[in-house]
Amino acid sequence: MYDLIIIGGGPAGMTAGIYAGRLGLKTLLITKSFGGQIAKKAVSIENYPGFESIPGIELVQKMEKHLRAQKIDIEIDEVRKVEKTEHGFLVFAKKKEFQAKAVILATGADPRPLEVPGEKEFIGKGVSYCSVCDGPMFKNKVVAIIGGGNAGFETAIFLAKIAKKIYILEHGSESKAFAVNQEIVKKTGKAEIITNTNLKEIKGDKFVNSIIYKDRKTKKEKTLKVEGIFVEVGYQPATSYVKGLVSFNKRDEIKVAYETCQTKVPGLFAAGDLNVGVVKQIITAAGEGAKAALAAHNYIQKL
Amino acid sequence: MYDLIIIGGGPAGMTAGIYAGRLGLKTLLITKSFGGQIAKKAVSIENYPGFESIPGIELVQKMEKHLRAQKIDIEIDEVRKVEKTEHGFLVFAKKKEFQAKAVILATGADPRPLEVPGEKEFIGKGVSYCSVCDGPMFKNKVVAIIGGGNAGFETAIFLAKIAKKIYILEHGSESKAFAVNQEIVKKTGKAEIITNTNLKEIKGDKFVNSIIYKDRKTKKEKTLKVEGIFVEVGYQPATSYVKGLVSFNKRDEIKVAYETCQTKVPGLFAAGDLNVGVVKQIITAAGEGAKAALAAHNYIQKL
Repeated sequence: MYDLIIIGGGPAGMTAGIYAGRLGLKTLLITKSFGGQIAKKAVSIENYPGFESIPGIELVQKMEKHLRAQKIDIEIDEVRKVEKTEHGFLVFAKKKEFQAKAVILATGADPRPLEVPGEKEFIGKGVSYCSVCDGPMFKNKVVAIIGGGNAGFETAIFLAKIAKKIYILEHGSESKAFAVNQEIVKKTGKAEIITNTNLKEIKGDKFVNSIIYKDRKTKKEKTLKVEGIFVEVGYQPATSYVKGLVSFNKRDEIKVAYETCQTKVPGLFAAGDLNVGVVKQIITAAGEGAKAALAAHNYIQKL
Repeated sequence: MYDLIIIGGGPAGMTAGIYAGRLGLKTLLITKSFGGQIAKKAVSIENYPGFESIPGIELVQKMEKHLRAQKIDIEIDEVRKVEKTEHGFLVFAKKKEFQAKAVILATGADPRPLEVPGEKEFIGKGVSYCSVCDGPMFKNKVVAIIGGGNAGFETAIFLAKIAKKIYILEHGSESKAFAVNQEIVKKTGKAEIITNTNLKEIKGDKFVNSIIYKDRKTKKEKTLKVEGIFVEVGYQPATSYVKGLVSFNKRDEIKVAYETCQTKVPGLFAAGDLNVGVVKQIITAAGEGAKAALAAHNYIQKL
């Protein structure tokens, strides 16, 4: 029986683990991998205070080392289900099951799919959800980024060193990316931003060769010849393993009390991108991990 | 006219500044100094994810360098008053006054005084609120730390390398310090923890020479011969310059909406230890700084 099980190894889960270890809680952290979205980040991270500019994977390594310095158990596994029991919680991972008095959910979010014809068919054949993983395959090729927000622009900054030409397709009439990202992309001279677009289809043979989109102003369909497509239309909370246990808002985010990150189930907390918090940043996820661990400690002390 | 004025240079204010700069806001940060409570931290910081162990002052330097890399203005000054105007806010610093569309309050908290006879009289003559500043003066001396929470134990860890003997006086029947801190203090072999105490008076001649406390169990008064007193009984929000403008709870903390850190005044935000958030950690203050800057950006865009 653990005091606390933390599910997830992104910034929220790792911070919760660091705090739980220091608080002297008997803790298990279960995760498929470390770093969450940071590990897949295309450009260096420049908004985590203390590191002016650091490659995502390096920040992950520093946080993981920090986590592993604590006296806590770590299991590399995937959680399938969490159940409330009389005295706490049962956590079913693929390989094994575990018990704890309190649980922190910190599995973050997964990339949201486009849901257009051709998308599933061409995954790994030109369609990618991770520019840092797949980008290098597109040396001197023409690619399209679907999504003109920050993630799309950061992907463009990364791909500008690799690809020949980059289209950024934005649904709205202008990009909502940070000014600093828009400026850098402009300076690369490789990107063309197309606004008011609705992606209709991904086409190809063995590999992607074009996309079709509708111009939302002229209502006309247009074709772009591209060899790669990077999907950057946001994330969806990774919460399927707690359906029926906690409450969700309409964006499928877990409802929590902001002050403690506690869900409607006493002893069950949710920190980071999977909960209702609007700000989805590394530093806010880490802050919530600390908050949840301190609240869990308080909950366990009072049992 | 600035878009945003940030008041305070601790983790919340510096993070808000980093975010505001990256968001392209015309920003001014006004602070007396950088680092807030971190700069005065007696032991290395081991709970800011990414830095396994780092002296407070080094973390401050890294954050300040990160902040100064942004295109924002910085004034070293003290703010005396903030006023709401028709189109935004007027910020009165000692040397000058400034205008902005939005303001983030991030002045943190100051050490709470003991309010016992002798305290004020012996400030700088044995009574200290900053062990890292004044500790080295107590080489091989006997000192007392008032407050047996985390701050008190961290002060003891720092002073153990300097002082001959350390008393830790705790009001309650047991310490609420983290297990890890209690363990380290025990290992120093220099500290004696006295619980159930009520400090009554600080006595001395030119310099402190003793303290009198009441044992809350036996109701008897006792005297301890000490040459130094380190006050670690918590902090009080540094908010005197916005009295009458925002709302406070009974702990004098500024009321905010958790999601945005906005006070009851539209365009006026409060991040970090001065607001109602219960968790007062570096990582949570930094998270709130990011939250407030993003919310301020959103507010300014909509004007």
